[in-house]
Amino acid sequence: MPDTSPIPWRFLTYTQTERESVPPGRTHHWYVRPNTAQSESLVFVRAQLAPGAAHAFHNHPEMDEIIYVLSGEAEQWYENEKRSLRSGDVIYIPRGVVHGTYNASEVELDFLAILTPAKISGPMTVEVVDQEPWRSLRR
Amino acid sequence: MPDTSPIPWRFLTYTQTERESVPPGRTHHWYVRPNTAQSESLVFVRAQLAPGAAHAFHNHPEMDEIIYVLSGEAEQWYENEKRSLRSGDVIYIPRGVVHGTYNASEVELDFLAILTPAKISGPMTVEVVDQEPWRSLRR
Repeated sequence: MPDTSPIPWRFLTYTQTERESVPPGRTHHWYVRPNTAQSESLVFVRAQLAPGAAHAFHNHPEMDEIIYVLSGEAEQWYENEKRSLRSGDVIYIPRGVVHGTYNASEVELDFLAILTPAKISGPMTVEVVDQEPWRSLRR
Repeated sequence: MPDTSPIPWRFLTYTQTERESVPPGRTHHWYVRPNTAQSESLVFVRAQLAPGAAHAFHNHPEMDEIIYVLSGEAEQWYENEKRSLRSGDVIYIPRGVVHGTYNASEVELDFLAILTPAKISGPMTVEVVDQEPWRSLRR
């Protein structure tokens, strides 16, 4: 079967993902976005954070999440608890729990985020980094 | 925060996963198994297939699945359609759809499988490789 044939969406190569650049230093490769016809159950995104960049404290009110680190080192927060995650390490974050992923290292952080369900009624993400106690937590 | 402290299950390093060896040539690293207290929504496993090994044709009657290839090359089947998946490529498989992952290459295949939901009433997997048309499909 030639690789040049049209590829149905069930098969998706990395180069076919929808690339989204979010300054400063954040790149998202969307495999499956929320609220699409692709999947009612799973959202799948690969994210890269440049040194110093972050997915600052936030929560997903309606979605459970697993983060899987591909390479680099994540300063990963789960509420007020901090751990270092490296290649092959994961964190599971139930819906509504505040968390954040920071790249405090000198190299790019590359990770996967899988969320469920994919059909939601409200916003996917609520940012809370401007609110206490999260605003002061990394100081 | 010292890395020697007890690690709650929400953070899970690769070395802490439950390693399962399934001859011939299959290794599973379970992060989150089905029907545990860890998660009602997400099952997460990293799998390695030696050259010639396979997750032969099967389906998950109650679970949707995403497979993400970390390294190596997967001969990935979705019903009677075959594609080659490499690092960064994915396939999405709705519940009940017959699929199979074969390592027809000369190097190890390393991939992630994420399934949802995590709470199911029947078996996770139904093997169908001994039934037609699947038994004859790769000949």
